Amino acid sequence: MRSFNRGALDLRPVTLTPNVNRYAEGSVQVEFGHTKVLVTCSVEDRVPPHLMGKGSGWVTAEYGMLPRATHTRGSREAAKGKQSGRTMEIQRLIGRALRASVDLQALGVRTFTLDCDVIQADGGTRTASITGAYVALVLAMRSLNKPGLLKGLTPLAAVSVGVVNGEVRVDLDYDEDSTAEVDLNLVATGDGRIVEVQGTAEHKLFDRKSMDAMLDGGLAAIQQLTVAQAKVLG
Amino acid sequence: MRSFNRGALDLRPVTLTPNVNRYAEGSVQVEFGHTKVLVTCSVEDRVPPHLMGKGSGWVTAEYGMLPRATHTRGSREAAKGKQSGRTMEIQRLIGRALRASVDLQALGVRTFTLDCDVIQADGGTRTASITGAYVALVLAMRSLNKPGLLKGLTPLAAVSVGVVNGEVRVDLDYDEDSTAEVDLNLVATGDGRIVEVQGTAEHKLFDRKSMDAMLDGGLAAIQQLTVAQAKVLG
Amino acid sequence: MRSFNRGALDLRPVTLTPNVNRYAEGSVQVEFGHTKVLVTCSVEDRVPPHLMGKGSGWVTAEYGMLPRATHTRGSREAAKGKQSGRTMEIQRLIGRALRASVDLQALGVRTFTLDCDVIQADGGTRTASITGAYVALVLAMRSLNKPGLLKGLTPLAAVSVGVVNGEVRVDLDYDEDSTAEVDLNLVATGDGRIVEVQGTAEHKLFDRKSMDAMLDGGLAAIQQLTVAQAKVLG
Amino acid sequence: MRSFNRGALDLRPVTLTPNVNRYAEGSVQVEFGHTKVLVTCSVEDRVPPHLMGKGSGWVTAEYGMLPRATHTRGSREAAKGKQSGRTMEIQRLIGRALRASVDLQALGVRTFTLDCDVIQADGGTRTASITGAYVALVLAMRSLNKPGLLKGLTPLAAVSVGVVNGEVRVDLDYDEDSTAEVDLNLVATGDGRIVEVQGTAEHKLFDRKSMDAMLDGGLAAIQQLTVAQAKVLG
Amino acid sequence: MRSFNRGALDLRPVTLTPNVNRYAEGSVQVEFGHTKVLVTCSVEDRVPPHLMGKGSGWVTAEYGMLPRATHTRGSREAAKGKQSGRTMEIQRLIGRALRASVDLQALGVRTFTLDCDVIQADGGTRTASITGAYVALVLAMRSLNKPGLLKGLTPLAAVSVGVVNGEVRVDLDYDEDSTAEVDLNLVATGDGRIVEVQGTAEHKLFDRKSMDAMLDGGLAAIQQLTVAQAKVLG
Amino acid sequence: MRSFNRGALDLRPVTLTPNVNRYAEGSVQVEFGHTKVLVTCSVEDRVPPHLMGKGSGWVTAEYGMLPRATHTRGSREAAKGKQSGRTMEIQRLIGRALRASVDLQALGVRTFTLDCDVIQADGGTRTASITGAYVALVLAMRSLNKPGLLKGLTPLAAVSVGVVNGEVRVDLDYDEDSTAEVDLNLVATGDGRIVEVQGTAEHKLFDRKSMDAMLDGGLAAIQQLTVAQAKVLG
Repeated sequence: MRSFNRGALDLRPVTLTPNVNRYAEGSVQVEFGHTKVLVTCSVEDRVPPHLMGKGSGWVTAEYGMLPRATHTRGSREAAKGKQSGRTMEIQRLIGRALRASVDLQALGVRTFTLDCDVIQADGGTRTASITGAYVALVLAMRSLNKPGLLKGLTPLAAVSVGVVNGEVRVDLDYDEDSTAEVDLNLVATGDGRIVEVQGTAEHKLFDRKSMDAMLDGGLAAIQQLTVAQAKVLG
Repeated sequence: MRSFNRGALDLRPVTLTPNVNRYAEGSVQVEFGHTKVLVTCSVEDRVPPHLMGKGSGWVTAEYGMLPRATHTRGSREAAKGKQSGRTMEIQRLIGRALRASVDLQALGVRTFTLDCDVIQADGGTRTASITGAYVALVLAMRSLNKPGLLKGLTPLAAVSVGVVNGEVRVDLDYDEDSTAEVDLNLVATGDGRIVEVQGTAEHKLFDRKSMDAMLDGGLAAIQQLTVAQAKVLG
Repeated sequence: MRSFNRGALDLRPVTLTPNVNRYAEGSVQVEFGHTKVLVTCSVEDRVPPHLMGKGSGWVTAEYGMLPRATHTRGSREAAKGKQSGRTMEIQRLIGRALRASVDLQALGVRTFTLDCDVIQADGGTRTASITGAYVALVLAMRSLNKPGLLKGLTPLAAVSVGVVNGEVRVDLDYDEDSTAEVDLNLVATGDGRIVEVQGTAEHKLFDRKSMDAMLDGGLAAIQQLTVAQAKVLG
Repeated sequence: MRSFNRGALDLRPVTLTPNVNRYAEGSVQVEFGHTKVLVTCSVEDRVPPHLMGKGSGWVTAEYGMLPRATHTRGSREAAKGKQSGRTMEIQRLIGRALRASVDLQALGVRTFTLDCDVIQADGGTRTASITGAYVALVLAMRSLNKPGLLKGLTPLAAVSVGVVNGEVRVDLDYDEDSTAEVDLNLVATGDGRIVEVQGTAEHKLFDRKSMDAMLDGGLAAIQQLTVAQAKVLG
Repeated sequence: MRSFNRGALDLRPVTLTPNVNRYAEGSVQVEFGHTKVLVTCSVEDRVPPHLMGKGSGWVTAEYGMLPRATHTRGSREAAKGKQSGRTMEIQRLIGRALRASVDLQALGVRTFTLDCDVIQADGGTRTASITGAYVALVLAMRSLNKPGLLKGLTPLAAVSVGVVNGEVRVDLDYDEDSTAEVDLNLVATGDGRIVEVQGTAEHKLFDRKSMDAMLDGGLAAIQQLTVAQAKVLG
Repeated sequence: MRSFNRGALDLRPVTLTPNVNRYAEGSVQVEFGHTKVLVTCSVEDRVPPHLMGKGSGWVTAEYGMLPRATHTRGSREAAKGKQSGRTMEIQRLIGRALRASVDLQALGVRTFTLDCDVIQADGGTRTASITGAYVALVLAMRSLNKPGLLKGLTPLAAVSVGVVNGEVRVDLDYDEDSTAEVDLNLVATGDGRIVEVQGTAEHKLFDRKSMDAMLDGGLAAIQQLTVAQAKVLG
């Protein structure tokens, strides 16, 4: 039986609570079952060096996990003095995904920074982060009262998919994730266009048929997630 | 007028929400007005090198602030690769204060790590952290089902006090803190014994009379905080 | 016209020169057109802490780029004092891919470290690294004269695929890579089982049909690469 | 018996040797018994970023301890690659204290950096540093031959106080410090106005009466220290 | 018998292969027996801060060793997060030596960076690096098509010398180097003027006579190396 | 005219003040004119990993410069988070030189750490450090009351030599050092055996005749320094 009594292609209960932070231009707490991520979007009137003088804006992301977000305490990256390879990989993915949802030219000379901090982790923190970050980003854009910024906005969300005991499952929790034979993270739009796909054979190589089944399951779940996002964004 | 319509010696609304983390041995979310800190207490069966072979336990703390806990985004310490002097100073204070609340010998060969992560900051994050950390620590000690651990436990809490426009005020919010002439952090027990006092003349030196008034105001507030802690701890 | 006068689904000239390092247990210089990577495989009789006492072996990888491997000089990571997120992401990918090619239990208490150092970079350095690393790994395993180590070995290779001007192309060079609409890296076996797939929409989202075409092109190219590997390995 | 045959409220022999460094704008070697700190004050015509364009000056401090200043050799912070939390806490305290002694506006666009390097440590290094730093700062200000700089100068000094075996003692040496029940550092003016007070219960909580006795003892000692400073400064 | 069947004052076979890198302004692969170093020279139109506004150019060097350049794998400096003292010492030596070969004023506002990366190490990597770097530097200067840059160019090369079993030997390989009683690195011109000499007693102090014999042997070898350089440079 | 009215081959006034540190096993303050270095020797009953189980002892050195040892304030290495290449080069030289003065086997399983901290710098800090370190090392060895430790002790000292305006000069001060054409540091015994020689052409290459003259001048000065050392050591 899967957690929350759900079928192989069902999501865990998903909640998106907007405006949880008093100061950020946009913010949301996103929960996929017991996974909880606090996402804030901060806007600054500057761009990184490689964009200076080009009139374009920028979207970037940082990811962190509180030391006791997990079953056992992990060490604090600030105390160790460096971010792990996993952290860097995830925050690069989040930034890349969110940049695909906007027209950077329309943003003006502004940087939108998405801070995704995992409060509690039960699998799927990177995909929950992306799903929440889209909401925080739109809230931040709206807060500036410049409708032109939202021009060309492409709603997107993300979900994890995997093969567990030979079965394709969507939105793996930690227990499933740690025993999955294949682990695939998918970022896509509600109408099935792919932004990013990262699939890894963990204990068993996979064929085209599995790949297809995972994409089918993932895209269907993402379609539901974009509906949930739209509801929160009104 | 002070925030929350309160008098010079009044606390902001204080809430202590226990067990907010599914995995930690003890946890609490503490709020002093708009200041919110998530505190977890993790227990590990090991002690730092300087205590090995002595049979004693240890209590330590780490402090962090999410980048957008504040009015403007601060840089992420994990990304900068080092903790600031302010962070180190605060986490050393929290650890020292909490060690004063327990009998280290009674803890056995165990380390209790208090992670205090500021979700939103409106002044007084270090004193809120200490006040919450005491609750998380007791919850973690109880979770081990070894009553001997709690032997010699001394309830304590902390509050900030200051002189603003010549008036002694308790529990400063950010706006008051940034204009205060004197800033004093006090850690004490409910019955008025002092654990730690740190007072700083920010814009104006202070005399013994101000010092006395600040201690009076701070100790009275701490008495209330220990009542609130006791209520949560049952 | 593509570099080396080739069609959309053709590889650049690929060479694998084995035993280029006098000291390493296994080594190869791999070239995909102007991209050149020096791969060594070093064997040590120890395993990382998480495997101690489990009887299993380990395969890991490190990746680096000489400062002037590229058109303009990049800064040296050793001098900057940290590896970039890109470097970490790539070396994690290489290690994961190569672990999928072996039976870790069969390796005994040994770590095989693959150092992939890019001498010259013209696109596709991570996929060239994986393709060469498989050869270096097998050479190192053979050098130990314990046939049991090679039990369960799964030949694999990697190639980059992309969509450039709407056309699916295999093995992009730097110029193509920097203008591609979609960029996909594929690691797979000669008989079409997938080890890892990472696809990113760079300037344009992509649909299932593009995804399928990229997988078709990539798997066909990988089939050729495994033939080249087999030839070198005799 | 206390070291140097002194009473509970007596200072150790204090010497302030000015102009010990040939190059610094101001310098002093300060000794409290066997504790020796070399303090230099360097003047530079720039201010930190947060003061640019405001016409104000700045005073800051750095603190270090030679590896063998203590009974056993400590590791060199430059070799470890980071300053300890203790070092950061102390240098922040020194800087804050000295800023309270001057009118930053009167300094002009200048930074006065106080380097406090402990040559030999027998307790009280931070308070000796502050006491010496005031002298070095005034010497540096005078060296510029601009009397306006000294406008609003407030002489101050610092001393450690503690409770040892139930007795309030002033100016603890290392042996006393390591067994003290309470440890309090006080920075104040000669006429009893407080700049900073930091008191910590080390092994035993303390009440208001102890606090008062420590402040009495500390302020009396500081009065003597400011006399010694004045004698050196002529 | 020495490696390559050579006499005490003979060099190993030396090869200088120019233009091995497609992108660098100048490049060479230098081999002294089994020691192989890849040297690139990159030209940038900027100078370090201490030369700004002075019209002078700059020559600098960085040195690195691939992890498996040696008999056993060394750790990667980029992964450790810092360059070793040995690396820093060597790259400072290379930079200093090459600056002695040019007229910095004639270079214009340009920095020539020599990256010396050791592909395989069998002793003498620093002297091989210097010998190759001179060639790469001249190739890079020529590539700019401004003959004035080469004004005042002084050809130079480097070799290691040592005392092994009481005998003065030139161009030590790794086995000799690790047992040598004295180890001396010499940088000089073909006509016997010295740029740098660094001699170290490893197991036995040395007298003036040994010193003289080492200088004689080293200068004669350097004379041969400058002939080899001239041949490659045409 | 040279500083201190001396001739080209004369040393500045040299003083060696032993036992300046109350805690270290051995200590000395060494002064060469205005250059002052505080040297302590600390003894610990352990050896570095590469010597474990071999019965041999170890001698090592660390070097630092107080920020205002020089004409203008330099940044503190502990605050920057890393030691400069210059610092590493110097401390490696000091350690190597001192190891040449002892029989490591005779030391037993002990590490002697020489901390050389420059209080004031007017040229020649590394050679003053070595000259003082020999004295501190012997004092520390004697403090252990095990005469066997001193078996095979070889007295040594160091001096800088240079060519200034075409003239060979010994013991350069800062002004001479910064204009010298050649700069050579020599470590040797009183009877003329060389431990280390490092000569660098700063603005002009040098020939064998200059080299010889520098060695003559340096060895004569070192002979005097070893006499001064012997006098202090009794």
